[in-house]
Amino acid sequence: MQNNTITSCKGFLAAGLDCGIKASGKKDIAIICCPTSAKAAAVFTTNKIVSAAVAICKQHAKSASIEAVVVNSGNANACTGAKGLADAKKMCELAAAQIDCKTSQVLIASTGIIGQKLPMSKITSGIKAVAKQLASNPKAGTDFAEAIMTTDTKPKQAIRKINISGRKIAIAGTTKGAGMIGPNMATTLCFITTDVAITKPLLKSVLKDAISDSLNKLTVDGHQSTNDTAIILASGLAGNRPITSKCPRYKKFAKAMAELCGDLAKQMALDAEGATKMFTVIVKGAASKAEATKAARAVANYDLVKCAIHGNDPNWGRIICAVGSCGVKLNPAKLSCSIGNVVVFKNGGPVKFNAPKVSKIIAQKQHTITISLGAGKAEDFCYGCDLSREYVTINADYHT
Amino acid sequence: MQNNTITSCKGFLAAGLDCGIKASGKKDIAIICCPTSAKAAAVFTTNKIVSAAVAICKQHAKSASIEAVVVNSGNANACTGAKGLADAKKMCELAAAQIDCKTSQVLIASTGIIGQKLPMSKITSGIKAVAKQLASNPKAGTDFAEAIMTTDTKPKQAIRKINISGRKIAIAGTTKGAGMIGPNMATTLCFITTDVAITKPLLKSVLKDAISDSLNKLTVDGHQSTNDTAIILASGLAGNRPITSKCPRYKKFAKAMAELCGDLAKQMALDAEGATKMFTVIVKGAASKAEATKAARAVANYDLVKCAIHGNDPNWGRIICAVGSCGVKLNPAKLSCSIGNVVVFKNGGPVKFNAPKVSKIIAQKQHTITISLGAGKAEDFCYGCDLSREYVTINADYHT
Repeated sequence: MQNNTITSCKGFLAAGLDCGIKASGKKDIAIICCPTSAKAAAVFTTNKIVSAAVAICKQHAKSASIEAVVVNSGNANACTGAKGLADAKKMCELAAAQIDCKTSQVLIASTGIIGQKLPMSKITSGIKAVAKQLASNPKAGTDFAEAIMTTDTKPKQAIRKINISGRKIAIAGTTKGAGMIGPNMATTLCFITTDVAITKPLLKSVLKDAISDSLNKLTVDGHQSTNDTAIILASGLAGNRPITSKCPRYKKFAKAMAELCGDLAKQMALDAEGATKMFTVIVKGAASKAEATKAARAVANYDLVKCAIHGNDPNWGRIICAVGSCGVKLNPAKLSCSIGNVVVFKNGGPVKFNAPKVSKIIAQKQHTITISLGAGKAEDFCYGCDLSREYVTINADYHT
Repeated sequence: MQNNTITSCKGFLAAGLDCGIKASGKKDIAIICCPTSAKAAAVFTTNKIVSAAVAICKQHAKSASIEAVVVNSGNANACTGAKGLADAKKMCELAAAQIDCKTSQVLIASTGIIGQKLPMSKITSGIKAVAKQLASNPKAGTDFAEAIMTTDTKPKQAIRKINISGRKIAIAGTTKGAGMIGPNMATTLCFITTDVAITKPLLKSVLKDAISDSLNKLTVDGHQSTNDTAIILASGLAGNRPITSKCPRYKKFAKAMAELCGDLAKQMALDAEGATKMFTVIVKGAASKAEATKAARAVANYDLVKCAIHGNDPNWGRIICAVGSCGVKLNPAKLSCSIGNVVVFKNGGPVKFNAPKVSKIIAQKQHTITISLGAGKAEDFCYGCDLSREYVTINADYHT
């Protein structure tokens, strides 16, 4: 058992088990507990249709302190109306009763099929049972990581350890797949624990920055789900001098957080539904960062590029077509593209290159596509994955 | 041989044959000729990277009269720099020499693999040979329709006949597939002939309107290629009182054009790469027509919706997710969705419905998804097709 779980940070207990939501008999209910209470911050989907769990979690995230997070997989509790909201609130009440805290001190997340009511009797007994198993060992952390999975093939966990004002700080996180689930929806849930002492506004700031350059840079199908949620809990038990401003200690913590979230995002890309590999698109020379982001996402979302990468085909024409059609400012006479370290298109014209060599680059588990637009100095990046027949099988042959 | 070819309109000859551009030995060079000269209008891709053929065609389309259109398939002549431009111009010169007209009276289109230079010796002998075969019979029209194909499995042809000021008018068109080609690119080429007498500006207006509600409403992968071109030629030989204003005769002609182009767009959707069926997304209750268009395209482009349709799965959750995440104004409490004539989601909540019945609706060759946003009174539509394993095979396993 690797010691990279969310229970590795001082002050956190976790648990996960099967309460019968999933027909597969896999774990589907999970809980994190911080008995000494934690400062919390969260970011959510920008989809205009949000799950009941997201609606309730947004309210509770405003609480000054949080003692637990309760999560179920196998059912998204989205598009379920007033009953769904009541059920989400009930889940928080049940967890609060077990932990002995206020309902508003419990955060919540759900992931799975949308449009179906939660099986509340299973969930009621599930929350009682999982709360009894709360523990601080690595197995408990991994049980949690497994219980939030949907079509993920493996749990995703990462840890970073740093020193801040002479104290050892740990930050640990777990996410569930960027693959489609249920198979109803592309849902990302991310839970991070840390023992650092920091103010709530700065915790929120660190989370937002780290997510924006990691999970928000990952695209599998280009759409956000109704349930996307990322939560960080800080117990403050590391004993560091509290971080109260954007000082060097803040920056050190923010850097470690960025690394941790980047690590998790790459694990998600590599385990996306049907994916056999991931790639990074870097766009340089854009008129603005927003335009660089837009172009990078356009390439990473372009089905023809994703199919070519699946087939190890150095088909740069599709990359140029995606960039040209996405609406960003570019200079056709300066437009260039590299795959790995090989230039395949330069200043608007094709370049002779060693195709078998580039094919080998694409065949790797990870490679990088770099595009220069020649329209400015801004740059940004995006993570993507290939598109396979397996993706179609997973999402076409399974019936709701 | 069906008499629905572009040679059915008075004044037009056509031809198509194999000159060796495609390794498959299929037809790859084609020509239309209007010896009495035609008024012409054209619309082009909005991709910022355009093929050499598009660049030259844009110039020549300004000519007061056009005598020929020369087309090659198997090579897009895109991203080929100054040599590509010279080659495209040379193609027009070669055709003009055969037809005995000015170079600027020849329009041009190319489709196929991008980034490769045209095989000019093959094209030179090909243009000479194809010009010698020009004929006005249905076979000649179908030869043209076949010679513009790439991964299309069949030629796409349609005709409409109307009466204008007591004279019989014909409008005939052919397109090549919305499937990816080469398999490098989603390229649409569309050629329409008519014998109506009409002014050049009004011809342009009719073409623009008809394309905007047909070919521009079709999405296979959501991106425009470097080569998209639609051309209409009007010989004026029908003998009708010339259309010189937006009078009732103009409207009658425009209506027939819209029907013709809609017919061609549906043929393309049904023959898109790997597609087994098509669907129409209608979005109502939008704040503006642009928002309705955006939402309809978002649903039709959403891979998870396309996979569900491939599997005949009434998975409305994916439709709602696509709408919610595409950025249009909507009222979650009024949001509704029907598949065929069955309501599956109403006023923000799920509705009990007969799933096997809806599955049968989706299993048809064509079905309609209707979404009401509850945010206004505007509406629009989009055509889409399913996403299959065959699409991935075509676009991943073939190497450039």
